[in-house]
Amino acid sequence: MKLRLMSVVLAALLPCAGSTQASAAPAAQTKPAPTMDQVLKASKPSDWRALDPNDTLYMDLPEGRVVIELDPAYAPLHAANLRTLAHQHYWDGLAILRVQDGFVTQWGDPAAEAEHPAHPPRSLGKAKATIAPEFERDSAADLPFTPLPDGDVYAPEVGFSDGFPVARDPKTGKTWLVHCYGMVGAGRDNTPDSGPGTELYTVIGQAPRQLDRNIALVGRVVQGMQYLSDLPRGNGPMGFYKNPAHQTKIERVRLASDLPPSERMHLEVLRTDTPTFAALVESRRDRSDAWYLYKVGKIDVCNVPLPVREAPAAGR
Amino acid sequence: MKLRLMSVVLAALLPCAGSTQASAAPAAQTKPAPTMDQVLKASKPSDWRALDPNDTLYMDLPEGRVVIELDPAYAPLHAANLRTLAHQHYWDGLAILRVQDGFVTQWGDPAAEAEHPAHPPRSLGKAKATIAPEFERDSAADLPFTPLPDGDVYAPEVGFSDGFPVARDPKTGKTWLVHCYGMVGAGRDNTPDSGPGTELYTVIGQAPRQLDRNIALVGRVVQGMQYLSDLPRGNGPMGFYKNPAHQTKIERVRLASDLPPSERMHLEVLRTDTPTFAALVESRRDRSDAWYLYKVGKIDVCNVPLPVREAPAAGR
Repeated sequence: MKLRLMSVVLAALLPCAGSTQASAAPAAQTKPAPTMDQVLKASKPSDWRALDPNDTLYMDLPEGRVVIELDPAYAPLHAANLRTLAHQHYWDGLAILRVQDGFVTQWGDPAAEAEHPAHPPRSLGKAKATIAPEFERDSAADLPFTPLPDGDVYAPEVGFSDGFPVARDPKTGKTWLVHCYGMVGAGRDNTPDSGPGTELYTVIGQAPRQLDRNIALVGRVVQGMQYLSDLPRGNGPMGFYKNPAHQTKIERVRLASDLPPSERMHLEVLRTDTPTFAALVESRRDRSDAWYLYKVGKIDVCNVPLPVREAPAAGR
Repeated sequence: MKLRLMSVVLAALLPCAGSTQASAAPAAQTKPAPTMDQVLKASKPSDWRALDPNDTLYMDLPEGRVVIELDPAYAPLHAANLRTLAHQHYWDGLAILRVQDGFVTQWGDPAAEAEHPAHPPRSLGKAKATIAPEFERDSAADLPFTPLPDGDVYAPEVGFSDGFPVARDPKTGKTWLVHCYGMVGAGRDNTPDSGPGTELYTVIGQAPRQLDRNIALVGRVVQGMQYLSDLPRGNGPMGFYKNPAHQTKIERVRLASDLPPSERMHLEVLRTDTPTFAALVESRRDRSDAWYLYKVGKIDVCNVPLPVREAPAAGR
């Protein structure tokens, strides 16, 4: 007895079931829309975009590597400060400080969080200690926006901009990154300029959309999310570890462009401004997989998969 | 430098900051709404409901106990079968079979999932092997429904029914449980009656609302969710463990009413049909915590905390 519960994300990485599946579907009135697997299998090289090494962070944890893509279109000041911190190897030897179930995993300098640290916090070197808030920005004609059709509880419009989930308000002309699973932001204190990126977090539960426009999102985890989501939950208030011995150490964080080309990964993300992406969204709004008996025909911005792959050798 | 990122859930369990906080808030134009901590601190004993031992499962894992509340109002046939399986100690010694990042953790009989099991699957005893689908039910006058005001991407109406997140469609007169973080369902194969509850799953990521009305939700995790969400992700297709040695063993699962009263826990959940719950929802729609600079004034059904507490000794 094989009990299946269809995959939201990993299905994309499985071998395609083949084109015979569609015609063999029982009781199909019309030809079903392609599945996400089929959409991806039919994608062209131009549907994919290589990660820019200058916008890519590798964070090495004991379990494995987390790859983060920065978004300088929405958080240019933060991206610049994060690059400076990475140049200086700021995070090497620092730690995962907080894992709050259903909410966030957060990392940075234990001495900066401790009430009575044994030594002063690590120097920021040439990085800034405060940064003007980048919680939203002006919409612009040259900023891509692929809208979703099904509305949103929190914002007037939602969609994707160059691979990132975003919202827009036509009345104010503003746009902002939204807090979906795997998005990365810069923790801050109560003042808006107090999140310089030294302490970062990622969403590990239901999208905490109440944080949108309250804090700077700076990018998203494109690979290795499981190394941030499967950590033991912190046993102190807000998921901080009471005992520093329980904190997971960060081995090192590097900007890909600071590494020799031979040490860089070759990852590609699916572009979000193409007919292929539109077909992927449709494949998730109206699931033609045989398992689905009821097809809702809707999708939330945080439920759209954003596929990542190893670049084919020929494209490197 | 204390970098804070306010809690979604655990804040409810922290000491209240005290009533002076509100009057000391800077630049407040009007008296801010109470925070969730303040709402809970002001709650009355009648705002809470004790878990019914006949609807409460204890699942003991090596790391700790997971407590699940069944919902016989929405899944009576499944609840009955789960009780039968628990009476027989069906799950004792079985395992966590699947952990798919951002999606679900699933548990049951390894022999029922294996391609070439070393021994036959465990007997279901007096439990049913198939159950009529309980994916939705008729609305009814005696079924509580506390609506939320901000709409939903997937359903015409959303809200809460006796502590569970639900949706309704006034056109069809149907109502159903929805897939929020921590909800528990009965995995099934491609036929609708193939999920007898032997294999269960819980949501560990963004609410997979596309599953709503496609599978039977049977309850929710009310305590110990972290023991299901922090497990190593499975390395096989759809998050199944390729190597059975990586599966976490289930020590035992018991229905609380099968245990002597001295071994039962005394947990209470906040009722969702009271002015206190309405105040809690408002405290989350419009955050008055000092950290929030932008108050969105909206909330998604899967972002409303459903507080659980140890019953005060006097109420037992």
